[in-house]
Amino acid sequence: MATQDEAAVRAVIEAFIDSWNRHDMRTLAALFAADADFVDVFGNWFRDRKSIERALTQRHATVFRSSRFTEKDVAVRFHKPDLAIVHAVIELSGAVDRQGQQLPPGLGVITSVIERAAGGWHIIALQNTSVAAQQPPAT
Amino acid sequence: MATQDEAAVRAVIEAFIDSWNRHDMRTLAALFAADADFVDVFGNWFRDRKSIERALTQRHATVFRSSRFTEKDVAVRFHKPDLAIVHAVIELSGAVDRQGQQLPPGLGVITSVIERAAGGWHIIALQNTSVAAQQPPAT
Repeated sequence: MATQDEAAVRAVIEAFIDSWNRHDMRTLAALFAADADFVDVFGNWFRDRKSIERALTQRHATVFRSSRFTEKDVAVRFHKPDLAIVHAVIELSGAVDRQGQQLPPGLGVITSVIERAAGGWHIIALQNTSVAAQQPPAT
Repeated sequence: MATQDEAAVRAVIEAFIDSWNRHDMRTLAALFAADADFVDVFGNWFRDRKSIERALTQRHATVFRSSRFTEKDVAVRFHKPDLAIVHAVIELSGAVDRQGQQLPPGLGVITSVIERAAGGWHIIALQNTSVAAQQPPAT
């Protein structure tokens, strides 16, 4: 379904990555619905846009201050005409730990539910999981 | 919305936990749509029910063989009458690492998208993220 809708949904993901890389958390948070859920790579669960913006603003002043997202893979599935589930594989580089030590680049996998609302497409739920360096047996 | 539909959606989550604890991956996989996406705590992304069942069967023969899920919190949101997003906080205990060493209990946060289909409610996307023991600043 390479349509105008798919382009609009992909534009949300592009804007997510672009605003992350510019550390513009106001723009990034505006991609989410007011009551959106966001589960970050640390397993923190934020339940509205304001909490998402507040947390990410703090992180982008510290551990993610010089971090950068690079898109590796994006897959869009429309489960309804006005609802898409997007899976994205993204590399995070330039992050530091709590002590300020540089962390090696790592991959994350994101599931995002994106819905068409009156003002355009917005994220209603997003979760990010780090790809473990050490995998369990037989994967 | 404490309705019959919410009860049906919660029953999917209960069945997910119950079949995990009985290590019955056939039953667990049957909760997913044939083309469902599943991102596990290790950041592996499985793109259909068969891949999900195969991977979880291998894990439940090894690292998750004696593991147990305990539900800590479940929140259900209906974004459409036939589509719910469920967030669950679950404790995993009894897991071992690749070397067979017992791991301490840990929490995971799950985002699950559950849709009503002809045969009842089924999972179309699910992602699990471990709650990090060490959190970044200011959370």
